[in-house]
Amino acid sequence: MKTYTHIFQGTAFSSKSPKVVQTLKDHLFCINAGGMIEKIIAPDDYDYQVLLDTYQDDESFHRLADGQYFLPGFIDLHVHAPQWAQAGTALDIPLYDWLNTYTFPIESKFSDLDFAKNVYQDVVSTLLANGTTTALYFATVHKEASLALADICAEKGQRGLVGKVVMDNPDQTPDYYRDADSETALADTEEFILAVKELAKKTKQGVYPVVTPRFIPSCTDEVLNGLGALAAKHDTYIQSHCSESDWEHGYVRERFGKNDAFALHDFGLLRKKSVMAHCNFLDDRDAELFAETGTAVCHCPISNAYFANSVIPIAQLHSKGVEIGLGSDISGGFSPSLFDNVRQAVMSSRMLEDGVNPALPAEERGVPHSRITLNEAFYLATAGGGESVSLPIGRLEENYAWDVQVIETRVAAAKLPLYDANENLQDIFQKIIYLVRPENIREVWVQGEKVHSR
Amino acid sequence: MKTYTHIFQGTAFSSKSPKVVQTLKDHLFCINAGGMIEKIIAPDDYDYQVLLDTYQDDESFHRLADGQYFLPGFIDLHVHAPQWAQAGTALDIPLYDWLNTYTFPIESKFSDLDFAKNVYQDVVSTLLANGTTTALYFATVHKEASLALADICAEKGQRGLVGKVVMDNPDQTPDYYRDADSETALADTEEFILAVKELAKKTKQGVYPVVTPRFIPSCTDEVLNGLGALAAKHDTYIQSHCSESDWEHGYVRERFGKNDAFALHDFGLLRKKSVMAHCNFLDDRDAELFAETGTAVCHCPISNAYFANSVIPIAQLHSKGVEIGLGSDISGGFSPSLFDNVRQAVMSSRMLEDGVNPALPAEERGVPHSRITLNEAFYLATAGGGESVSLPIGRLEENYAWDVQVIETRVAAAKLPLYDANENLQDIFQKIIYLVRPENIREVWVQGEKVHSR
Ligand SMILES: [Zn+2]
Ligand SMILES: [Zn+2]
Repeated sequence: MKTYTHIFQGTAFSSKSPKVVQTLKDHLFCINAGGMIEKIIAPDDYDYQVLLDTYQDDESFHRLADGQYFLPGFIDLHVHAPQWAQAGTALDIPLYDWLNTYTFPIESKFSDLDFAKNVYQDVVSTLLANGTTTALYFATVHKEASLALADICAEKGQRGLVGKVVMDNPDQTPDYYRDADSETALADTEEFILAVKELAKKTKQGVYPVVTPRFIPSCTDEVLNGLGALAAKHDTYIQSHCSESDWEHGYVRERFGKNDAFALHDFGLLRKKSVMAHCNFLDDRDAELFAETGTAVCHCPISNAYFANSVIPIAQLHSKGVEIGLGSDISGGFSPSLFDNVRQAVMSSRMLEDGVNPALPAEERGVPHSRITLNEAFYLATAGGGESVSLPIGRLEENYAWDVQVIETRVAAAKLPLYDANENLQDIFQKIIYLVRPENIREVWVQGEKVHSR
Repeated sequence: MKTYTHIFQGTAFSSKSPKVVQTLKDHLFCINAGGMIEKIIAPDDYDYQVLLDTYQDDESFHRLADGQYFLPGFIDLHVHAPQWAQAGTALDIPLYDWLNTYTFPIESKFSDLDFAKNVYQDVVSTLLANGTTTALYFATVHKEASLALADICAEKGQRGLVGKVVMDNPDQTPDYYRDADSETALADTEEFILAVKELAKKTKQGVYPVVTPRFIPSCTDEVLNGLGALAAKHDTYIQSHCSESDWEHGYVRERFGKNDAFALHDFGLLRKKSVMAHCNFLDDRDAELFAETGTAVCHCPISNAYFANSVIPIAQLHSKGVEIGLGSDISGGFSPSLFDNVRQAVMSSRMLEDGVNPALPAEERGVPHSRITLNEAFYLATAGGGESVSLPIGRLEENYAWDVQVIETRVAAAKLPLYDANENLQDIFQKIIYLVRPENIREVWVQGEKVHSR
C-alpha cells in the first residue's frame, strides 16, 4: 500500500549542528501529502528494500542521477523585492545618495501595480532559480502592490513572508515616498495583515504577513508603537533594520539615548517572530536582549561590505545564543544568490579575524577567533534561517518541509571539478557550495511541490 | 571591396582610463585577418553607412541582438591550472595544511599525463566559458604536463602564458613533489621555454613561456639566479608570488634581510615582463621598485580573503604608477570567474576603507581613501591586465586584439533586471558586471576567432 505522495532517493547534505554538515548517502526521503518529510530511511534500514519494491516503478518515485545531490532550499531573511529593479547599480555612491537618487525613486514607482507585478514576478522567479525556497520580503509602502507580491509568492510556490513597508517620518523620508500619516500607515498595515492571512488559507507552502517598520529613522514614535501593538494583536512576524551602520546606530542613540535593540524593544518590536537585518553594532547587552526575546539576526555579508562600515562578529554572536540567518539584502547586496552570500560570509569572517590593513602588525590587525567555516555559513542559509522564523524548514529531517534544491554537478558548461570517483562527500559538498551556478540547480521543490526546473 | 574578415555591430563597454568606462553605442568593429581591431566606426561617421551597405548581407557581418553587449575578454593573471581539481575545498584549514594535505598531493599527480590533460582541458574550457580570454598559468613541476597545458590553450584558442613551476628547496617542499635538483629544474625550464616558443609559431592568438619560481621559500638561491638568467636570455615572462602573507613576507626577510621585491630583483626576476601575485605587504620602496622595473602586481581578492592576512591597498598602489591586473588564483580563490573577482575587489577595498571591527570607533577602524569603484575593478580585469603583460589586449580600441565576450542580458533563467527602455548605459554596465552568470556569456572570441558559444 502506498502511503507517501513522493519518495526521493539520493544523497543529501543537511546541517546537524552549526559546525557539522551531515551526509545522508543514498537515503530515501518519504514525503506526505502535506509536503512534509514523514520518514527518512538509510540503505541499511529494514524498510529500505520494501519501500524500493513498492515505489520504484511508480511516478511518485524520484531517483537522483549520478552526480546529483540534494541540498535544503535556502532561506533568504532579507530581500527588498522592489529593489531588484536596480540590483547592481550605484553601489559606488554614498548611502544617502543611493537612497535618494536610486532607491526611493524606484520604490515610489510601485504605486503602479503593473510595474510592481512585473518586477515581483521576476524577483520571485529569480530567487527560486537561485535555490531560495523561503524569503522574507520588504515590499514598498503601497498596500496593493505589497499584496501582489504575496499573491505572486503564493502562485509561484515560494514560501513568502511579506511586509508592507512603513515609513511615516517626514524628517527622514522624501515627500514623494512615505505613508500619508501614522494612522493611514497603521490602518494599511492591519488591512494588509488580514488580507495575507486570508491568502494563507489556500496556500500550501505558507505565506505570512510581516510588520515592517523600514527602520527607526524613517518612523515616528506613534507608528513604531502602533506596529508593536499590531504585531502582538495578530501574532505576526516583524522585520526591520537594526544597528546597521555608524550613521544609523548614532541616529538612534541621539534620538532615544539607547541602542536600536532597546529602542525597538520599548516599542514591542523584539519578539520570537522578529528578524532584524544587519545588527553589526549590537553590543553585549543588545545581543543578550536578542537571545532573551528570541529575536533573530539576519546577516547580509555582501550588502554589509558596502553600507555597514564593518563586519558583524557572527562567531561571537552565535556563542551568545542569538539565532542567526542569512540575507541577500537585495539591492544593498547585488546578488540574488545565497550561495554568493554564504561564500561572502566565510570571506568576511576571515577578514574580520585577520584584519585588513597590511601596514599594521599582525597582532593589532584583526579580531581573533572570528572566522566561521563553510559549514557554519551554510547553516546560516538553511537551518539557522529556519530557526530564525520558527518554521520547520532548512533541514532535511523528519517533520521538516520538503524544500530542496537538486544540484547537478555535471552540467556541461558549469561542470564541477570532480575527478575522483571516491572523492569524499564532504569535499564534494564544499565544491558544491563554492562553485554552484544557477544552471547547476536543476530542480527546486517547496513543501513537496516542484516549483522550478531546467 | 571587402577588406575586413569580420565586422561586428553593437554596443560595447571598454575602459578609457582606470576610472572611466567608455560606452561605444552601436559602433562597427572592423576586424582584420590577424584578428586585430583595425577600425572602429561610430554611427555618425561617414563610413558607417558605406560599410553597412557593403557588409550587412555577408556572413562576415555580425549584429548584436537587442539586450546584447560586448565586453573585452578578461585577463586572468594568476591561475594554478592543476588546482582546478581541488577548487572550493579545504579553504577552512591553515595554509600549511592546505598545501601539504591538498595542494602538493594533487599537483604531484600531474606526472600522469592523462590525468593532467583531463584537468587542463576542463580548466581552459571553464575559464573561456567565464569570459577569460587570456590567462597566466602556473602548471606543475612536470615539463611534459606543462607543455600539454600550453598545447591545450593553443588548441582551444585561449591566449595562454604558461609556466613550468620550479621548486627545488628541500627545506620547504615535500620529498614527493619537487624538482630533482637545481640543474634539472633549470634545464627543464629551458627546454620548456624553447618548446613553447616553437608552439607559438603556429598559434594565432599567441602562447608564451613563463619563468615560474613558485615563490622564494620553495626555491634555492642557485635556481632563482638561474631562472633570472634564463628569463633574460630568452626574453620571457616571469611570474611568482610576492609578499603574500605575514608568514611568507617574514620568511624572506629572515632569509635575505630584505623584502621579497628587492630579493627578487637581486635575482633578475623583476622585469617589464614580470607579474607578481598578491603583493599585499609591499612597502613604499617595494612599490617604487615595481614601478621602475615595470613589474606588475596581480591582485587576487578572493584568495587574499583566505590566505593573505590583509587587503592590498590597490588605490594607493595605482597612485604610485604600479601596473595592476586581476587574478582568480585558483584554487586559493575558489572562483574561475573574474566577474566574481571584480566584485570582490570592490568589496574588499570598501572593507579596507571602512575597516572591519565594529568595536572600534569609526575613525580608528579603516584606511581612508582605499575604496576602488566598479569601473576601477573592471579596469584591473581588462586594460590593467593587458598593460601588465604588455600586450595589445583588454580594450576595445583600434590596434587591439578582438578578444570579446558577448553578454546576453535576457537569458530566461538569468535575466538581468532591465525595465526601462531608456536606462542609461552606465547603469546597464554596472548590472552586467555585478549580475552576469556564465550562462549570460553567449560567445567568446579571441584574436578574431570564436572560441566558445552557447
Ligand atoms: Zn535592507
Ligand atoms: Zn598562487
